[in-house]
Amino acid sequence: MADLRPAAVGLRTRLFQIIFESDSRLAKSFDIGLILMILASVAVVMLDSVDSYHSAFGTLFYEAEWAFTLLFTLELAARLYCLERPLKYLTSFYGVIDLLSILPTWLALLFPWGQSLLVVRLLRVLRIFRVLRLMQFVGEGRLLIDALKNSWHQILLFLFGVLMVVIIFSSLVYLIEPPEAGFSNIPTAVYWGVVTLTTVGYGDITPVTPLGQFISMMVMLIGYSIIAVPTGVFSAEVIRSLREQRYSNEACPGCGLDRHEHDSRYCRRCGTWLDEDTQDPRLRDEADGASQQGH
Amino acid sequence: MADLRPAAVGLRTRLFQIIFESDSRLAKSFDIGLILMILASVAVVMLDSVDSYHSAFGTLFYEAEWAFTLLFTLELAARLYCLERPLKYLTSFYGVIDLLSILPTWLALLFPWGQSLLVVRLLRVLRIFRVLRLMQFVGEGRLLIDALKNSWHQILLFLFGVLMVVIIFSSLVYLIEPPEAGFSNIPTAVYWGVVTLTTVGYGDITPVTPLGQFISMMVMLIGYSIIAVPTGVFSAEVIRSLREQRYSNEACPGCGLDRHEHDSRYCRRCGTWLDEDTQDPRLRDEADGASQQGH
Amino acid sequence: MADLRPAAVGLRTRLFQIIFESDSRLAKSFDIGLILMILASVAVVMLDSVDSYHSAFGTLFYEAEWAFTLLFTLELAARLYCLERPLKYLTSFYGVIDLLSILPTWLALLFPWGQSLLVVRLLRVLRIFRVLRLMQFVGEGRLLIDALKNSWHQILLFLFGVLMVVIIFSSLVYLIEPPEAGFSNIPTAVYWGVVTLTTVGYGDITPVTPLGQFISMMVMLIGYSIIAVPTGVFSAEVIRSLREQRYSNEACPGCGLDRHEHDSRYCRRCGTWLDEDTQDPRLRDEADGASQQGH
Amino acid sequence: MADLRPAAVGLRTRLFQIIFESDSRLAKSFDIGLILMILASVAVVMLDSVDSYHSAFGTLFYEAEWAFTLLFTLELAARLYCLERPLKYLTSFYGVIDLLSILPTWLALLFPWGQSLLVVRLLRVLRIFRVLRLMQFVGEGRLLIDALKNSWHQILLFLFGVLMVVIIFSSLVYLIEPPEAGFSNIPTAVYWGVVTLTTVGYGDITPVTPLGQFISMMVMLIGYSIIAVPTGVFSAEVIRSLREQRYSNEACPGCGLDRHEHDSRYCRRCGTWLDEDTQDPRLRDEADGASQQGH
Repeated sequence: MADLRPAAVGLRTRLFQIIFESDSRLAKSFDIGLILMILASVAVVMLDSVDSYHSAFGTLFYEAEWAFTLLFTLELAARLYCLERPLKYLTSFYGVIDLLSILPTWLALLFPWGQSLLVVRLLRVLRIFRVLRLMQFVGEGRLLIDALKNSWHQILLFLFGVLMVVIIFSSLVYLIEPPEAGFSNIPTAVYWGVVTLTTVGYGDITPVTPLGQFISMMVMLIGYSIIAVPTGVFSAEVIRSLREQRYSNEACPGCGLDRHEHDSRYCRRCGTWLDEDTQDPRLRDEADGASQQGH
Repeated sequence: MADLRPAAVGLRTRLFQIIFESDSRLAKSFDIGLILMILASVAVVMLDSVDSYHSAFGTLFYEAEWAFTLLFTLELAARLYCLERPLKYLTSFYGVIDLLSILPTWLALLFPWGQSLLVVRLLRVLRIFRVLRLMQFVGEGRLLIDALKNSWHQILLFLFGVLMVVIIFSSLVYLIEPPEAGFSNIPTAVYWGVVTLTTVGYGDITPVTPLGQFISMMVMLIGYSIIAVPTGVFSAEVIRSLREQRYSNEACPGCGLDRHEHDSRYCRRCGTWLDEDTQDPRLRDEADGASQQGH
Repeated sequence: MADLRPAAVGLRTRLFQIIFESDSRLAKSFDIGLILMILASVAVVMLDSVDSYHSAFGTLFYEAEWAFTLLFTLELAARLYCLERPLKYLTSFYGVIDLLSILPTWLALLFPWGQSLLVVRLLRVLRIFRVLRLMQFVGEGRLLIDALKNSWHQILLFLFGVLMVVIIFSSLVYLIEPPEAGFSNIPTAVYWGVVTLTTVGYGDITPVTPLGQFISMMVMLIGYSIIAVPTGVFSAEVIRSLREQRYSNEACPGCGLDRHEHDSRYCRRCGTWLDEDTQDPRLRDEADGASQQGH
Repeated sequence: MADLRPAAVGLRTRLFQIIFESDSRLAKSFDIGLILMILASVAVVMLDSVDSYHSAFGTLFYEAEWAFTLLFTLELAARLYCLERPLKYLTSFYGVIDLLSILPTWLALLFPWGQSLLVVRLLRVLRIFRVLRLMQFVGEGRLLIDALKNSWHQILLFLFGVLMVVIIFSSLVYLIEPPEAGFSNIPTAVYWGVVTLTTVGYGDITPVTPLGQFISMMVMLIGYSIIAVPTGVFSAEVIRSLREQRYSNEACPGCGLDRHEHDSRYCRRCGTWLDEDTQDPRLRDEADGASQQGH
């Protein structure tokens, strides 16, 4: 391929380096420009939903939106152009986000029902993650993501237990409280239960009977106490991740096992002496024994 | 017994394997089917409490409820049939839950006052835990449960201290605030105190006098700070549990160092072979060398 | 003294053992009875503040209150009787609590203005701590109290920083929001700030302008994030306390220093070999050297 | 310089020691006096904003304010007088705070529009930090600040992720909920999202449709769970800081083991004397013994 269209390939390679990588100066400017444009377009979508701003700056917002959409469309075209398998990209996570970022505006132009999709454009905000990842900022969050991966199973189980508690206590309060207090059906009572247990406490539905207030107090105290569970699990995971960073990076000269604890003197797998600068005391003893035998 | 009724025992054994165990394919299908049925029946009970759904789908819900109740009754009968001591099961935790899951519907059929018990059916949701335990999903939560067991004593003591703080500050605010603000009696003031200290903050009762607001601010700051207590205790327990999982209990036969990692084969301090049941490969090598030298 | 009034001393000693100690069976019954009586008397004070209960059971409550007061007065008299220095007890923390538990009822009898002191009786609840301490239940909380002692200085500093943040952001919102929104003066704005930062969120005062809502969002996110600070400090303290429990209890045979780490083989203060069952390798080496020199 | 104006330099040096240092008794009195004056002036500004207090004590507050302003102006003049480069101080953080503490009062005297700046005087509260730092109280918070410095990058990333979640869920609820429920535009919906996710829960805007309530419940549960993230990160940092404080960085000259406790004099693994600058008492004893044997 490189032989067939050298010039075009040169353009594609250069485009690829600018758009998909982040090493050159041009690529970094592109990344920063993209972040700013994404933030600006999200701000426009958000502000346009405010009636007073819409009536005052509606036309400006409309034009800005089209400018952003055209630029994002151009960017997507450039991305697809410089990839070997553009279709595979389009069906990837970021490809779908790219499409969802521009499609609503085009659809709203073509079909009247497209208007209702315009809010989908806010998914553009997810595109920032790609740029951050490129710029290795997200590398900072590796620890967080590792700890989340290790603890999500337990946190899910915790949330399941929370829902059990909520369903049982909510039904109880539903039975006790009069419907006028807002507990008109069980799903609403469960909504109240989640609002209470998570300590959000809107106050749109509150118990009015003494017994209902007493059970609410129990739900609050449970919610206040068991927040310790996800926090404890996650803290333990972060500490474990940090500790694993703390392992010595030295690999065993015998079997190559790495991640020894810092006070290890012998490889825990093959028993080789780890500190190459000094001699293994066992060998010294043996040497002593040998020299003594030699006498 | 197996000799007396071989065929029936065969059926009972097979039923037992399907219902109470989770190894075979049929047993797993049964578990998943049961979870789906429990969730569906709970959803029906919850949705039926919504007036609009009740008037629209009341008959459907009624029929679905009877279908679930008949199936659960059948399931309970099968459970009792394949157990040696069915009565002992019926008085166990899950046996009681099984009964409470079906009794209300039958009672509502037989007696008019049974209607008020229908919400008890939501306890069905607890039956999911049995299935999860069967499928060893709850094994994931072993760590959580261990840590909770180790820390509940301290968390209870903490909650007791919290209640002291609440009672004393609530009485104070009760004295200061006018009854019109909602602080009409001490139990209500205590309810407000729990709502405030746990940072739920409904806002149904709020202080209106400057002094009352000042004391409220103290309660809030106390609640905001001492949430650190259960969290700290629980985190410490999870970390301890994790650490204990990570180290084997085996001590080095050479120098006595314990707390080796699970994959350790040699002591990290003195290099001794840890697995006493087999021979250290190094010695074998040396023995080989010696025998070769002997040639 | 024991020689002068042996019989009375015998009574005093026995009373002391029952009231102030918790070893004998009688003393334990006394403790449990006291806890129940304290809880009952607190419940009476709380319920008596509810209008409907007061009008229904007012006389009963009044009689119960007098019964409790007489019993508590008797108990205090017994305490003072069996102590060597009763005045010193009366001015101690628990002595003051004991007095405050009974004085209001007596004062309300003697003076009409004593009525307003009746709520002071709720301080009785603090007396439970003494009983719990006696029964060594609070020993469970030693870890909590140690960790609180070690971290309170930092948590206080944290609260001071929180107040700075609250004052500055509240003044800002006070300037931005119209007084009709509830931000009528700076103390009220600070009250709103504490309600928001501690994530209590009553909702009695909420920002209505977009800029006010934006700054509120910042306060909320700050409050949501910095709760990590007391939690982190306290968790670290609990973990440190737990780890110190983990120290070996073995004292150095050389200098008596205890709290060695578990893998310590030599005392970190005087260098003595800690494992008394085996011989210090240094001595063995020296012995070897001596025997070799002997050759 | 000291030679040119000895007397004046003496005054400047003494002033410097009183104002900028905290060793002598006079300097400590100055610090405490300054803290009290700052607190009093902040209290005056806050109370003066309350209408009832303003009308009752307005003149008193006005006079007190001028007294504080004159004293603070005098203090600033003294600070500038005893510094070599007063301009550099004026442009430093604390110099700007000092200026902002007194300028509003002077401007309000000179220009009518200066009134609106009066709230800026609350920044005086920041001056307390300087005094606390002087008195080495903030040294207590060194650990907190270190841990914050190490974890702020991850906490910022966390807050960014939180905002993503909020924007996406808020837009969803904005689409679902009718504008009458308060979700009139996307910025307001985002405000609601932050109020909900941070578990503040004012309740000024709450979902009314079942679907909106369902999504709200998800936002609440997410907010309730992911508070574990900053807490876990910060806890891990505090624990790391504490551990690093606990161990000295000195490595054993005998076996190279590092991370000894600060009071360690002998290596806990090989018994070597750790303090290389002095001689091991054991060797001295042995030397003594040898010399005694030599007699």
